Amino acid sequence: MNDLPSCETLLLNYVGGVLHITLNRPDSRNAMSLAMVGELRATLEAVRHEPNVRALVLRGAGGHFCAGGDIKDMAGARARGGDAYRELNRAFGALLEEAQAAPQVLVAVLEGAVLGGGFGLACVSDVAIAASGAKFGLPETTLGILPAQIAPFVVRRIGLTQARRLALTAARFDGAEALRLGLVHYCEHDDAALQQRLDETLEQIRQCAPQANAQTKALLLASEREALGPLLDRAAEQFAAAVTGAEGVEGTMAFVQKRKPKWAQ
Amino acid sequence: MNDLPSCETLLLNYVGGVLHITLNRPDSRNAMSLAMVGELRATLEAVRHEPNVRALVLRGAGGHFCAGGDIKDMAGARARGGDAYRELNRAFGALLEEAQAAPQVLVAVLEGAVLGGGFGLACVSDVAIAASGAKFGLPETTLGILPAQIAPFVVRRIGLTQARRLALTAARFDGAEALRLGLVHYCEHDDAALQQRLDETLEQIRQCAPQANAQTKALLLASEREALGPLLDRAAEQFAAAVTGAEGVEGTMAFVQKRKPKWAQ
Amino acid sequence: MNDLPSCETLLLNYVGGVLHITLNRPDSRNAMSLAMVGELRATLEAVRHEPNVRALVLRGAGGHFCAGGDIKDMAGARARGGDAYRELNRAFGALLEEAQAAPQVLVAVLEGAVLGGGFGLACVSDVAIAASGAKFGLPETTLGILPAQIAPFVVRRIGLTQARRLALTAARFDGAEALRLGLVHYCEHDDAALQQRLDETLEQIRQCAPQANAQTKALLLASEREALGPLLDRAAEQFAAAVTGAEGVEGTMAFVQKRKPKWAQ
Repeated sequence: MNDLPSCETLLLNYVGGVLHITLNRPDSRNAMSLAMVGELRATLEAVRHEPNVRALVLRGAGGHFCAGGDIKDMAGARARGGDAYRELNRAFGALLEEAQAAPQVLVAVLEGAVLGGGFGLACVSDVAIAASGAKFGLPETTLGILPAQIAPFVVRRIGLTQARRLALTAARFDGAEALRLGLVHYCEHDDAALQQRLDETLEQIRQCAPQANAQTKALLLASEREALGPLLDRAAEQFAAAVTGAEGVEGTMAFVQKRKPKWAQ
Repeated sequence: MNDLPSCETLLLNYVGGVLHITLNRPDSRNAMSLAMVGELRATLEAVRHEPNVRALVLRGAGGHFCAGGDIKDMAGARARGGDAYRELNRAFGALLEEAQAAPQVLVAVLEGAVLGGGFGLACVSDVAIAASGAKFGLPETTLGILPAQIAPFVVRRIGLTQARRLALTAARFDGAEALRLGLVHYCEHDDAALQQRLDETLEQIRQCAPQANAQTKALLLASEREALGPLLDRAAEQFAAAVTGAEGVEGTMAFVQKRKPKWAQ
Repeated sequence: MNDLPSCETLLLNYVGGVLHITLNRPDSRNAMSLAMVGELRATLEAVRHEPNVRALVLRGAGGHFCAGGDIKDMAGARARGGDAYRELNRAFGALLEEAQAAPQVLVAVLEGAVLGGGFGLACVSDVAIAASGAKFGLPETTLGILPAQIAPFVVRRIGLTQARRLALTAARFDGAEALRLGLVHYCEHDDAALQQRLDETLEQIRQCAPQANAQTKALLLASEREALGPLLDRAAEQFAAAVTGAEGVEGTMAFVQKRKPKWAQ
């Protein structure tokens, strides 16, 4: 694997095809600083072409996922003036775009504060597992500012109908409500259940061929913006390539031989 | 504030930053007449540039929200012939477009009949509070006509999967089912609970900065039709303007000083 | 009615305005063969311009809906080489496109295996009724291949958030979960309840004017890809034509005369 970037705000731990990324600024409830944005982007870039990294697990240290943007960075931007606020904000949006497009399966473990930018990060995960006691919300407009980079990802995640209420009332809600709104896929009531759900999820992902998963994820994302006919034409090409490629041959053979394919062993 | 239009079909009551709009044709269960469409559009236009009007509460007099299009207008259109039906129908669609785009937070209180055009109006609200006994449905095709202007708003509201069943079976359903389908955000079982939910919602909205809310709403709506990259670029510009603008400065200062910002006092 | 195609893989039964289509390869759990794809497309084509056929009921013989693609066809494509895989796959996508666009109301009855291609077919129904014991899933990537033609239909059906988890973990789930995810509209616990739900659904559809339903369905589908303003302009034209057309006149008159319209008798 490529070298992972050296990080001050993240803990990185690669084990068994899974890169565990822990936001590690517990004193500020893992507030999203410009440094953290940069390290997350560098980490995603480092593994983008690594077929051995099949899943990313994103969580926060110290009992919180991420409480939103970092106040000190905001103060710094104020001091620099000019375009500093715009660049700070847009860099976070770039992170969301890149995390959304990661070829790996992105699993988010959501505990404690999942606010503002943390909420945005949760919205680009492929599988989201919440603790029942997590606190979700979009508090931006109560501070006179906007969930600017986050807004389109929230709409794609839970639809316009729920997004408009949450963003325009700044309502707080817990893991059970996050499950009901379709923001997360699971809500677990204690640490053991949360860990078990994560283990089961990673085991499910291990049954799936890595390249097939990456291509499928790209097709799912593309289907929200591409016209249907051309997309289906392209998908048929990819299907033909997959079924005659290494994974398709191995998967079919394993199925016939009633054994697990190599990627699941 | 600009003068509000003089209305025959609506009751208007402005109090504490909230304009209460009551559909007031109880004898016809507030059927949507051409006159009512015109008065609603004029009312929205009158407050469009009024920053003091932060929320709109839309409900019906006499225990019903709105039972759909007005039969007498249909008869009148038949008498006029020509393009009268088309214009009548399109004017209602224009109302839905304008209500969807209102810079205020639009809160709908849904009791009794919420049918046809009334269903359409419910679909453009930011927060929808239903009485459990409300009756929702799209009866158009049982009359040999189409939910023509309503259809796209229903799809945006609850998604294609639910919209197609409701429109093609004309099924009736109550407030609890409306909550399950994601058509409304709350379902309340008596008048007191309904009023309390409305009060709480308006109080939440009062915590949010008016201009920040208006811009956030516009971003949410835009994110369904604009390409992501350019939208995020524009959103970053708006973020920078907001954080250095009057609301952003006040909101940040209030946060640091542990007091409520002006707009929430 | 046009002659229905002669079919080896389907049972066709036309009664009372409803064409019952039964996938009939029970030995392979109704696996979707190229022959079956062709016969389904020919059947849809034969009834496309038949106003007397108002609903299609799609189900499977022998307790299963459809377990996915047919293994023998895959072997055959391997033997033919060249573009055979691509064509095989794209033909199934064409079936999904055509079933989605069918002017009739498409009702799917989902029992037993609803996997891969069967899952895709379920996603283009207007009303989906699941048995609680049905088994849903997208197992493609566990075989090293892609849910290529299916992916965009799953996203449109249940949204990106749920689609990405299901496709990237190959999770299996039952009818109750399918209801919770919004994949189906009903989940029934025994054969009698399933049949009763189907009967009620067909009775609801019989209350709706056939042409109005067909035009409404087309508007709903169009609203996901067309710009709102032009769509509403066109919808207003269609509304005017419907209200002055045979169905609109009959529907309005029946309403005034407090009798059932012709299509519901």
